[in-house]
Amino acid sequence: MSSALPPRARASVRDVAAQTGLSIATISRVMNGDRRVAAATRTLVLDALDGLGAAAPMPRGQDRPAGGPIFVRCPYELSGYFGLIVSAIADELASLNRPMLLDAGESSQSRHPLGRLSMRAEAAGAILVLPPEDSAELERLGRHGFPFVIVDPRTNAPDGAVVVSAAHHQGARALTTHLVGLGHRRIGVLAGPTEWLVSRERLTGHTAALADVSVLQDPSLVASVEPTIEEGHLAARRILAREAPPTALVCFNDKLAVGAMRAAHEAGLEVPTDVSVVGFDDSDLSRATSPELTTVRQPLAEMGRVAVTRLLRLVDRQPIDALHVELGTTLVIRGSSAPVHSR
Amino acid sequence: MSSALPPRARASVRDVAAQTGLSIATISRVMNGDRRVAAATRTLVLDALDGLGAAAPMPRGQDRPAGGPIFVRCPYELSGYFGLIVSAIADELASLNRPMLLDAGESSQSRHPLGRLSMRAEAAGAILVLPPEDSAELERLGRHGFPFVIVDPRTNAPDGAVVVSAAHHQGARALTTHLVGLGHRRIGVLAGPTEWLVSRERLTGHTAALADVSVLQDPSLVASVEPTIEEGHLAARRILAREAPPTALVCFNDKLAVGAMRAAHEAGLEVPTDVSVVGFDDSDLSRATSPELTTVRQPLAEMGRVAVTRLLRLVDRQPIDALHVELGTTLVIRGSSAPVHSR
Repeated sequence: MSSALPPRARASVRDVAAQTGLSIATISRVMNGDRRVAAATRTLVLDALDGLGAAAPMPRGQDRPAGGPIFVRCPYELSGYFGLIVSAIADELASLNRPMLLDAGESSQSRHPLGRLSMRAEAAGAILVLPPEDSAELERLGRHGFPFVIVDPRTNAPDGAVVVSAAHHQGARALTTHLVGLGHRRIGVLAGPTEWLVSRERLTGHTAALADVSVLQDPSLVASVEPTIEEGHLAARRILAREAPPTALVCFNDKLAVGAMRAAHEAGLEVPTDVSVVGFDDSDLSRATSPELTTVRQPLAEMGRVAVTRLLRLVDRQPIDALHVELGTTLVIRGSSAPVHSR
Repeated sequence: MSSALPPRARASVRDVAAQTGLSIATISRVMNGDRRVAAATRTLVLDALDGLGAAAPMPRGQDRPAGGPIFVRCPYELSGYFGLIVSAIADELASLNRPMLLDAGESSQSRHPLGRLSMRAEAAGAILVLPPEDSAELERLGRHGFPFVIVDPRTNAPDGAVVVSAAHHQGARALTTHLVGLGHRRIGVLAGPTEWLVSRERLTGHTAALADVSVLQDPSLVASVEPTIEEGHLAARRILAREAPPTALVCFNDKLAVGAMRAAHEAGLEVPTDVSVVGFDDSDLSRATSPELTTVRQPLAEMGRVAVTRLLRLVDRQPIDALHVELGTTLVIRGSSAPVHSR
């Protein structure tokens, strides 16, 4: 088995044949991706297998085309963050002469390609970038023995899954430690949605840095919002309008920081003399603001490349040592952070 | 034939068989994408076909898998501009249940997948975004009868090719007309590389707007540079240091404009009171600068969607009316442009 998930009691090909009224040979052909099966018959079989979920019989692994294309799913707009990860994956796969089947764009979130992925012999394996699926669905994919790697999991990855991510906790901790070193103690936080693992990881990194100087984060200064310029602008405006406003704003991506800088500007506050504003990602945006943003560089291209090499090990059934690889981030200090009350 | 290019005298399958010493049946199988041919044999045939170039025999069109995946090539980093086009293509293909084979990333420029594309039965057609290949190579792809659409051609597209692009000329003309309306006559230009069609189109749009008020562009105020923040910074610094500096800078993408604003700032010039700076693309960057950038919005997502629908018409051998579709751009006026000498 390519994934480290243990198999469960499952139905046999015979069971599926009995259920659908088709021959065992037909079921096997569909499971092994034989294209000669009529489309309607194929659908019937796949629906039956989907219905069985984790109890569905496993396709014969040796019939999966180890040299076939790699399915890459990134159900988001490919700008900035996601674009850089997918570019690196594409580059790496191309250099290895591996075709790449891409499923991308916001609308892909409403599709559910994973259910059938393990049945499809057209892909040798999959890379899933920030998959919106819950842990149970990913776990099921693993039970089918289908090789896949998760890049930047949105929620806790299922046991045994191979994961590549950035060191969010360490990155956020370094960022806030930088602000603490400048004397900041009362800090506002523009965090991403709390249901995202990455938001929680960064928040714990941030609070750890505050705890190092015996400060507890004031919960009323934390906003969990969608990571856009507009949401950053609105949230920062609310936080800066408080009676005891913070002296610094930590934003969990650069777009939020751009919105926060605008809110500070509108409130008549100078960045960084009146308020420090720091971001996360080191996207192009961080060099377009004035002053330029202090931020955290994520190893996006490296994440993409590492995901490819790990997936190909799974596809080739080679052993994987650590299931979870966390790649280090880099603090990038620019002009948007300064000592507290530096005016 | 799906492309409007006329066929030329070409070799027969028999000729290729004689040349390679293989049977006619084997040559035909490779040309029709039969996967049962051994890899080495396949390579031998493809090499022979490649060697014949435009004179290679045509694969039988009816054997191309009309429902097969679409090959998308975008040999650039998928951030901003390119990411948005590819996202829209991915979204549109997915909504039509079409698998997408992606070839992307800077390193793809050194690969040459087009030569063999028409021989590969695994793709039903291709979308080529800003292809770095010269016109002759694209023409050859057309001669093989392979359906493809060019998005935003880098050079003049071959006769008969189906092209989708933004109205670069009209967009640049509207941008400079806006500046001219504010009283600007002495304008600096940060243009992209002159060998790019898009740079030339935008430059002619710009000069047309100046010609409308009987002004000729001073060539010494035009810089042709790579479209990055750094190059924009350096070029703007040179232009602003001239004895008679311009009152406005037109930049042919937002990154160049970000660099130009930095150069203005360093020269002690306020934007827009001392110098107006305008960009092109309406990327996220344009809302991160202070003041925000006046720019030209390109219909990137629409370009991607239109490319898909036109390609699928080609694949289905339906007629295409206009070979070239040019989608309109929108002038977006923000804070970085103001009347000349408004201080």
